[in-house]
Amino acid sequence: MNAPDKLAQLLSLTREPFPASRKVHVPGMLHPQLQVPMREVALSNGETATLYDTSGPYTDPAAEIDVRRGLPALRAGWIEARGDTELYTGRERKALDDGTKHEEREAQRIAALRAEAAALQRQPRRAKAGANVTQMHYARRGIITPEMEFIAIRENGKREWMAEYLADSEKAERLRGNPMGAKIPQLITPEFVRDEVARGRAIIPANINHPEIEPMAIGRNFLVKINANIGNSAVTSSIEEEVEKLVWAIRWGADNVMDLSTGKNIHTTRDWIVRNSPVPIGTVPIYQALEKVGGVAEDLTWEIFRDTLVEQAEQGVDYFTIHAGIRLAFIHLTANRRTGIVSRGGSIMAKWCISHHKESFLYEHFEDICDIMKQYDVSFSLGDGLRPGSGADANDEAQFAELRTLGELTQVAWKHDVQTMIEGPGHVPMHMIQANMDEQLKHCHEAPFYTLGPLTIDIAPGYDHISSAIGAAMIGWFGTAMLCYVTPKEHLGLPDRDDVKQGIIAYKIAAHAADVAKGHPTSRARDEALSKARFEFRWQDQFNLSLDPDTARDFHDETLPADGAKVAHFCSMCGPKFCSMKITQEVREYAAAQEGMAQKSAEFRAGGSEIYIPLNKA
Amino acid sequence: MNAPDKLAQLLSLTREPFPASRKVHVPGMLHPQLQVPMREVALSNGETATLYDTSGPYTDPAAEIDVRRGLPALRAGWIEARGDTELYTGRERKALDDGTKHEEREAQRIAALRAEAAALQRQPRRAKAGANVTQMHYARRGIITPEMEFIAIRENGKREWMAEYLADSEKAERLRGNPMGAKIPQLITPEFVRDEVARGRAIIPANINHPEIEPMAIGRNFLVKINANIGNSAVTSSIEEEVEKLVWAIRWGADNVMDLSTGKNIHTTRDWIVRNSPVPIGTVPIYQALEKVGGVAEDLTWEIFRDTLVEQAEQGVDYFTIHAGIRLAFIHLTANRRTGIVSRGGSIMAKWCISHHKESFLYEHFEDICDIMKQYDVSFSLGDGLRPGSGADANDEAQFAELRTLGELTQVAWKHDVQTMIEGPGHVPMHMIQANMDEQLKHCHEAPFYTLGPLTIDIAPGYDHISSAIGAAMIGWFGTAMLCYVTPKEHLGLPDRDDVKQGIIAYKIAAHAADVAKGHPTSRARDEALSKARFEFRWQDQFNLSLDPDTARDFHDETLPADGAKVAHFCSMCGPKFCSMKITQEVREYAAAQEGMAQKSAEFRAGGSEIYIPLNKA
Repeated sequence: MNAPDKLAQLLSLTREPFPASRKVHVPGMLHPQLQVPMREVALSNGETATLYDTSGPYTDPAAEIDVRRGLPALRAGWIEARGDTELYTGRERKALDDGTKHEEREAQRIAALRAEAAALQRQPRRAKAGANVTQMHYARRGIITPEMEFIAIRENGKREWMAEYLADSEKAERLRGNPMGAKIPQLITPEFVRDEVARGRAIIPANINHPEIEPMAIGRNFLVKINANIGNSAVTSSIEEEVEKLVWAIRWGADNVMDLSTGKNIHTTRDWIVRNSPVPIGTVPIYQALEKVGGVAEDLTWEIFRDTLVEQAEQGVDYFTIHAGIRLAFIHLTANRRTGIVSRGGSIMAKWCISHHKESFLYEHFEDICDIMKQYDVSFSLGDGLRPGSGADANDEAQFAELRTLGELTQVAWKHDVQTMIEGPGHVPMHMIQANMDEQLKHCHEAPFYTLGPLTIDIAPGYDHISSAIGAAMIGWFGTAMLCYVTPKEHLGLPDRDDVKQGIIAYKIAAHAADVAKGHPTSRARDEALSKARFEFRWQDQFNLSLDPDTARDFHDETLPADGAKVAHFCSMCGPKFCSMKITQEVREYAAAQEGMAQKSAEFRAGGSEIYIPLNKA
Repeated sequence: MNAPDKLAQLLSLTREPFPASRKVHVPGMLHPQLQVPMREVALSNGETATLYDTSGPYTDPAAEIDVRRGLPALRAGWIEARGDTELYTGRERKALDDGTKHEEREAQRIAALRAEAAALQRQPRRAKAGANVTQMHYARRGIITPEMEFIAIRENGKREWMAEYLADSEKAERLRGNPMGAKIPQLITPEFVRDEVARGRAIIPANINHPEIEPMAIGRNFLVKINANIGNSAVTSSIEEEVEKLVWAIRWGADNVMDLSTGKNIHTTRDWIVRNSPVPIGTVPIYQALEKVGGVAEDLTWEIFRDTLVEQAEQGVDYFTIHAGIRLAFIHLTANRRTGIVSRGGSIMAKWCISHHKESFLYEHFEDICDIMKQYDVSFSLGDGLRPGSGADANDEAQFAELRTLGELTQVAWKHDVQTMIEGPGHVPMHMIQANMDEQLKHCHEAPFYTLGPLTIDIAPGYDHISSAIGAAMIGWFGTAMLCYVTPKEHLGLPDRDDVKQGIIAYKIAAHAADVAKGHPTSRARDEALSKARFEFRWQDQFNLSLDPDTARDFHDETLPADGAKVAHFCSMCGPKFCSMKITQEVREYAAAQEGMAQKSAEFRAGGSEIYIPLNKA
């Protein structure tokens, strides 16, 4: 893409639907008001395929989008109808929320930024006194929320078009997958979603102050999800630019987005992102807290941190990474590591603990944090501050000591009905990946695992989306519920637009490979439909069913740009005269003309012709 | 890279050494004349790292390269000294060898092409009457050839710089890898190489007419190798352009290259490639044979095929893909497949068998083929003509019936002491990969496995280097000896220069991930050295130790282009104020200043402070 095109895209949102695709909606049954969006791809043979769709209203030409007003509050009525929340004044907004240096000029700039999106300010909502408004709390009381039914419909997809492929799986044992201990039903019912959330095996990140989301589940018995990280720009941002990062990420398949902004404008940028996001948003609140104390880790206090949690909960952040498992006693375990502590949150807390020679305030105030989480239904993403930064440090005592602590904290969170997932590494050679999953399942009681990669080798800077997609696919198969993407810029610099896309596609590949291996009932249908299109030389269908139709089409155009080539019964690999797929079709026709080749071969074999005697016995 | 740069590179060979790298040579002991080349990387802290080097003399500024004369014949003396071969007149060269349509203009063009590289014509060599000149034959007679010692030295690398990392592996059980049944010794001796070749568990592709190669081994107990495919250009090629494709592929790490040319100039292009290649060259002879009969599969005959084998053996091709396992009786097994037969060689033979309703001439003449192979030491790469073209067809009866036949043929080849490896799929979901390796080991008697991918999903056209690198890494860990690369253009078009590089890097990642997981003793040292450099902010060393120093450096420059940033103790991800690695170092210093944090923590724990009581028991 040339520079002017890039700029044009940055200045407006990416709104075009995918080729041959339209948004369709499946209604609810328990909750008839539900309209679950999916992407329907029209194939050239008259068939359709309906795909899981993370892109939200942005790919629906009928949707009116105004980033200064935010998305429609899809869940507002559901939340209100539960009657257990109240609007309230909320925490007072402070200049410090957007950065530390507030000279006159800075203050004006921030005021201007905030004014630009004044309509995004919404009055916060919280649980009524004594109430608990988490999806886990409802689930444990036997309540099937609209969110749960929405997810059931979304995960199932439209089965009509899959029937042919599902039948194949039933016939062929070898195609059924190996769930590695997962218990994925043939059909996801709303009750199944409720049960998984109740037992903590899945979470629904859904802050009551983020009513704009299209609910989704993170759990071992659902489709494997992926997360993309974005952050604010170093230079002054525009609202369109920040929202476009989000829109771009979900277009290519990010199920969740983490806003890892540091520096200036953190609060205002988050307003922009949350109000315009149809996917759950996660943050690492310690990053903003650190900004508030001028970047000096030792100056952090529980009070500042607590205030930041409330600030972000009121804005609608759906999950918080909290590094409460990095305890004072574990820090010395990293002293002889090849690469020490590589998690930002982990290093901040390590420095705090050592400086004060005190136990982490996150650990000590964990139940206080739970009290905040349950008032807004913010989910925990328990951070792995001691994750290995190189293969040499993988699975060491520091890492596993923290993991066991995260397991203890999970049980505390569950005591409060607070939804919880567990973050995982990092850098792990292939042969050590399974142990991570086993330890996590054992110590964290099947709470969803959410891993970064893992990177299987350390020597591929510039290509760590690949070195980590290998590990991600494997750990996804073994049971990880969500994979945090890695871009080609990992270890080297800040990802640009194309890096974000490269990272997401690599992780969609990993997640899908895991779903196929686990035998998720809906996962193989898309592969089969594309393979069928490939074999029948339906080039446009092959492109349109792929993870990235634009790139597939561009690559084909590079060698065979003519429109005619898109319906040709050959491709550039072999050319028109010599094509293996074409020959196969000829072989089939020939066989049919000769009364069926199976019969022929059977006769031939029955004849006992000696060329069928294995050579090594001849 | 812009267009003029690209053109400039195409017009001359890529000769620059890698950054901070020089060619070093390790002498032989049994054969003191051996000089085994390696790449030595000078690090900024005064240390060095010595890496396995596939790039041949091209990256040695001291080497004089003239593509019209070819590389020095490194092995000529070794071959001659064995006294079991003779020079002979060789097969008469025919116009048909370079294509089918020989009008006057064509004939002139071919004559001109041939004249351009007349000096590349060498008199062919073959075994003396009754002799067998395969490395396997020598190995089985207890002879350690110079090739075997060369390989032992090459595989071991220089252990001096690895000592620190090797010791770590010895200390930490968890870092030792899981060999999955491989038997990799701590040190590769020439005798070990001999033994592996003798029992057929490794091959040394080394045609006596390709004395230019730097010998390498393909076997489960050696480093995992990768193969890159190249082919002639559709338009008239220049010799520089064809050789540059090869040089580019081996620069990035291709251990073997297959020349899959079709159409015109096949014979002459192959002269150019073989004479200038320091790595073994493989071909699929049926492709050229098919050209000789005008692309009509039914018109193929054993005589034409046999003549083509001799033609290519005399030129110096090191291994032939022979689809002798696709038997008449198996063809009907593909009738109900999602994607039929997708191997080109497989479909040609299927069409031939069906057309004539006869058993494959490759199968029937297999022992005749062995007789040719052993006169030149051409290795078999037994092709999987029925490999699955989609996940839906993976591991089906057609595929495994052929695999069992390949196992039978392996034993026939071994009867003649002909070196043999087995080709494998293709498209295989993750949960079905292990079965491929198990079946191959079981039926093919540990002959090296050489797989294409496998691709773990079908929906990623444009990114199949990634979808397949996942499967390649796994099957490499499980025991596959060589991985055939897949480029981003797979299924869509012909790979260009950058696609070739992307495919190779993805496969170097997969192969290295497999080596690390298997616990190959030398594999982790490079990761550790790079991780150490990363942790110590030695940016240049981090780039120079990576698989692709150019890209790593370019990516870093995009965010922090200043030279100063290459020695800065921070990076663009966190910035100068807030860097997790920097904080870790501060934590270490702080701890040291306080008489050691391990001691402190121990005291603290011994004090029985109640905050160490697990929360869930509180």
